[in-house]
Amino acid sequence: MIQRYEVGPRMSELSVHNGVAYLAGQVAEDASQDVVGQTRQVLAAIDALLAQAGTDKTRILRAQIFLANIADFAGMNKGARTPRVVAGHTPPRATVQAALAKPEWKVEIVVTAAV
Amino acid sequence: MIQRYEVGPRMSELSVHNGVAYLAGQVAEDASQDVVGQTRQVLAAIDALLAQAGTDKTRILRAQIFLANIADFAGMNKGARTPRVVAGHTPPRATVQAALAKPEWKVEIVVTAAV
Amino acid sequence: MIQRYEVGPRMSELSVHNGVAYLAGQVAEDASQDVVGQTRQVLAAIDALLAQAGTDKTRILRAQIFLANIADFAGMNKGARTPRVVAGHTPPRATVQAALAKPEWKVEIVVTAAV
Repeated sequence: MIQRYEVGPRMSELSVHNGVAYLAGQVAEDASQDVVGQTRQVLAAIDALLAQAGTDKTRILRAQIFLANIADFAGMNKGARTPRVVAGHTPPRATVQAALAKPEWKVEIVVTAAV
Repeated sequence: MIQRYEVGPRMSELSVHNGVAYLAGQVAEDASQDVVGQTRQVLAAIDALLAQAGTDKTRILRAQIFLANIADFAGMNKGARTPRVVAGHTPPRATVQAALAKPEWKVEIVVTAAV
Repeated sequence: MIQRYEVGPRMSELSVHNGVAYLAGQVAEDASQDVVGQTRQVLAAIDALLAQAGTDKTRILRAQIFLANIADFAGMNKGARTPRVVAGHTPPRATVQAALAKPEWKVEIVVTAAV
């Protein structure tokens, strides 16, 4: 059984199967913010999706992070500070540079989580 | 138990474990086509691999899409229109720009699916 | 139940859930080496993490490979030759170019494995 959430014509935002939640890449809604603010928005969007699946950020299995400019690495980390990540429950991460679908987006995060 | 398909000396095209299929990144066989055509080829290659594992595109859990040129985003979407994606079963996606292993490749898609 | 290994304030190196190990992106400790040497270091780091989870490189479900320069593709393959990958157990792969968090890093590999 697969459950999908926020199902659109091209993509959905979240699928859940066999106790694992697969999230779509999340980006900032207000892309006028800097990378710190955009990271906070992205993490809030992830929190909201995880809540829909009945789980939360203490149960993230991995985060794939794409930065439009790898020079924003420190800013992304600043945006991802506690309490936005939870001590003792920090996930495996991989962070690389990649241009994103809209030029104003500075960070996109793809999360896999346990439900 | 892990089942592997199309096992070569460096990589296989598909592994299945615990009800989940992990596909290798798929690219176009005929790389002379534009991004619309290449996307269609990639989706057909994914369909064929999913069929080997006894599953299909209604059961994709996530698609990670790499475009050699993010300006091809609309063309990739055009190539991925219904019936190539199935209404009500659209997967979570993340799309970023990344140069691919051959310069003529315009799109590579990495799929995770439920079996 | 989620088990995490090498848990730091921002990230952990490995999470295990429901029989699947999710590794953080691995990079070379000695970044003065070329891509062949860095790939060998990365694969050794992956081996060590998999061992912590009680599994090994014959059980890798997928490897996402990021090269800072896609021209290093052949060198990465050279670094990943047998016995560093095991005949009959080669994993699905996807390899794309992406700038990494430190300019001296040439390759980063993100592994998912069965436990």
